[in-house]
Amino acid sequence: MIDSSTSLLASQKHDIVRFAMGSPANEDIPVDVFREIAVTHLNPSSFTYGATEGEPQLLEALVDYLSTTSEPTSYDRLVITAGGMQGLDLACKIFVDPGDLVIVESPTYTNGSATAASYGAELLEAPMDADGLIVEALPALVSAAGRSPKAIYVIPNFQNPSGTTLSAQRRELLIKLAHDWNAIIIDDDPYGPLRFTGQDVPGFQHISPRDPLVFSVRTFSKILAPGLRVGWVDTDPKIRQLVINAKQAMDTCTNVPAQHMTAEFIRRGDLSAHLRRIRSLYFDRKCAMRESLAHSLGERITMTDPEGGFFLWLRLQGEDAMTSSTALFETALREGVAFIPGTAFSPSYKFDNALRLCFAASTPDRIQVGVERLTRSLDLARSVDY
Amino acid sequence: MIDSSTSLLASQKHDIVRFAMGSPANEDIPVDVFREIAVTHLNPSSFTYGATEGEPQLLEALVDYLSTTSEPTSYDRLVITAGGMQGLDLACKIFVDPGDLVIVESPTYTNGSATAASYGAELLEAPMDADGLIVEALPALVSAAGRSPKAIYVIPNFQNPSGTTLSAQRRELLIKLAHDWNAIIIDDDPYGPLRFTGQDVPGFQHISPRDPLVFSVRTFSKILAPGLRVGWVDTDPKIRQLVINAKQAMDTCTNVPAQHMTAEFIRRGDLSAHLRRIRSLYFDRKCAMRESLAHSLGERITMTDPEGGFFLWLRLQGEDAMTSSTALFETALREGVAFIPGTAFSPSYKFDNALRLCFAASTPDRIQVGVERLTRSLDLARSVDY
Repeated sequence: MIDSSTSLLASQKHDIVRFAMGSPANEDIPVDVFREIAVTHLNPSSFTYGATEGEPQLLEALVDYLSTTSEPTSYDRLVITAGGMQGLDLACKIFVDPGDLVIVESPTYTNGSATAASYGAELLEAPMDADGLIVEALPALVSAAGRSPKAIYVIPNFQNPSGTTLSAQRRELLIKLAHDWNAIIIDDDPYGPLRFTGQDVPGFQHISPRDPLVFSVRTFSKILAPGLRVGWVDTDPKIRQLVINAKQAMDTCTNVPAQHMTAEFIRRGDLSAHLRRIRSLYFDRKCAMRESLAHSLGERITMTDPEGGFFLWLRLQGEDAMTSSTALFETALREGVAFIPGTAFSPSYKFDNALRLCFAASTPDRIQVGVERLTRSLDLARSVDY
Repeated sequence: MIDSSTSLLASQKHDIVRFAMGSPANEDIPVDVFREIAVTHLNPSSFTYGATEGEPQLLEALVDYLSTTSEPTSYDRLVITAGGMQGLDLACKIFVDPGDLVIVESPTYTNGSATAASYGAELLEAPMDADGLIVEALPALVSAAGRSPKAIYVIPNFQNPSGTTLSAQRRELLIKLAHDWNAIIIDDDPYGPLRFTGQDVPGFQHISPRDPLVFSVRTFSKILAPGLRVGWVDTDPKIRQLVINAKQAMDTCTNVPAQHMTAEFIRRGDLSAHLRRIRSLYFDRKCAMRESLAHSLGERITMTDPEGGFFLWLRLQGEDAMTSSTALFETALREGVAFIPGTAFSPSYKFDNALRLCFAASTPDRIQVGVERLTRSLDLARSVDY
């Protein structure tokens, strides 16, 4: 008996449904195009030091591409970074000094808040609802904190982990408050181009063009391929010079072959085509996940209904709310499904009854299997609890 | 007349002899091999998130490769970084708090000292001679500073910019002092594998194996290709976990395609062959530069005689010592030769009568042309000075 259950476990482990990582599925990354570009477009200059601000061909391709979006920009505002993470590191390195107050969404992206904390920030967790960060609540929170924040870290579209989108009214109010407080808005938007339903909400750069208090962090990780580690920041030209100086002492320049490959990918127009394809794919996957969850778990959970991006935020209800998602994680892994427990998204470990589920990286069939396994895990957890 | 001199200038500018950048020549980077590896070895997993500590195949290839050198190591001590620069950033982020004293060589690598300063370090510049950092002088300097250093930043082999190598006796003394002070030795050694003459001096890791106070920063930038942005740190396993945590909030992971290409390059044994080839090349270039300088400038300069690496350190003597190398830089550029003025290597802008010359990136013929142009620049500067 032990042998057979062990081998069953092993076979399940090899077949885990991956709702955990915030990463596109391998099969949705255009690897063949990258290989072809590597042969035709990598040259000696791809392997030597590049400019710290980024390779000219990538900056040009990016300015061209962004001119077709709702957030056009110019060359003198951009710095290429090692993914969005380095954009956040740069923002915090430049703006956050020990003891500074930084407002973060609750829940928030762990590595974003961790970076602010690593520069000595005191984090103020601010609540969210279905329209994102409750901006109206900030003045009272700031007043209670007794001092103005130095920065406000926000993921406006299809937030990680909640999947919610900050409403237009709240964006406008947030800009007003930022000016009252002279605080930087760290506008982290990795998922914005992945809207598959509903209407675009104007971005901070659109609402308040060329606002020096808006520091925008972008990345190709979610819209193209995370392994490239290529992203960018879009900021006031004076701040851009600080970004370049800081990046010089972080990694000299972003890896050059990946910059050249990304530039050529955009230049061919493949990025727009790729985005159309994955938006449709991710919409189907989100619908599949919500339908499976509603069917299997019904009243036992609430869940968000994101209009784009990667993530659903699920909260356990009723008797299941007694189940710790942190404890559930191991049971679920044994059952063959992975997710991220809610506490990972709060510096003070809130949300132990919540789970972040990534729908973007699994097919609808696999999603159904994953949700069945998750349901079984919850049943097992409840039978232990009671 | 104006037209012809302008076009002469333009033609010279396009033909500048590049003694400035610390980078291998484009033609000495094995681009064809990388292109071939890109086609045969990049796969979907090359484009998704990698482990923060580095890709397993690169870590394994590196452990194998290092087992053939004087500094063998183990998997549990290594973290792959975005070049050596990120290794320095990680060291400073982990060990340096505002107000901490950090000893740096004088002259030193600008971005190394700048990184320490960016975390609030107070820099103590310590003098060097032909055997590198004068370690015997440190106790008196530290005593005068009134407190122990938190870290000692040292480039032991073929130092940037001086080209000198720290003697074995001084390395041993430095380890002893580090233990007296409980200070971290930031052992930055990008050039160690590029020894082309003389005997290897034992490294810190060799002298004091598994010493938690030795934090070693390494890179493929100088020995293979800087554009890859792939390096590594070799440190105590307990500190390694701090490195992984810190890197997680810097860039999540190092770009994955470059890690896979580097791993395959090493696995094929091409790194050893490549190192043999470039060592011989750089030896010829160093000899050519020293001969040209001795012939053209003789008593007007002193220069170091590096046994490896990239750089010669040249100091102006006699009447020429009145010439500012910072001012000379523009004249030299007009004459068609680039170098880095000495002040760039000191936080307090010492060494205005010194120049860093990179011999590694130019052929002996081009080196001769560059030295002739440098000589003409010095003649011009002197005729202005007097």
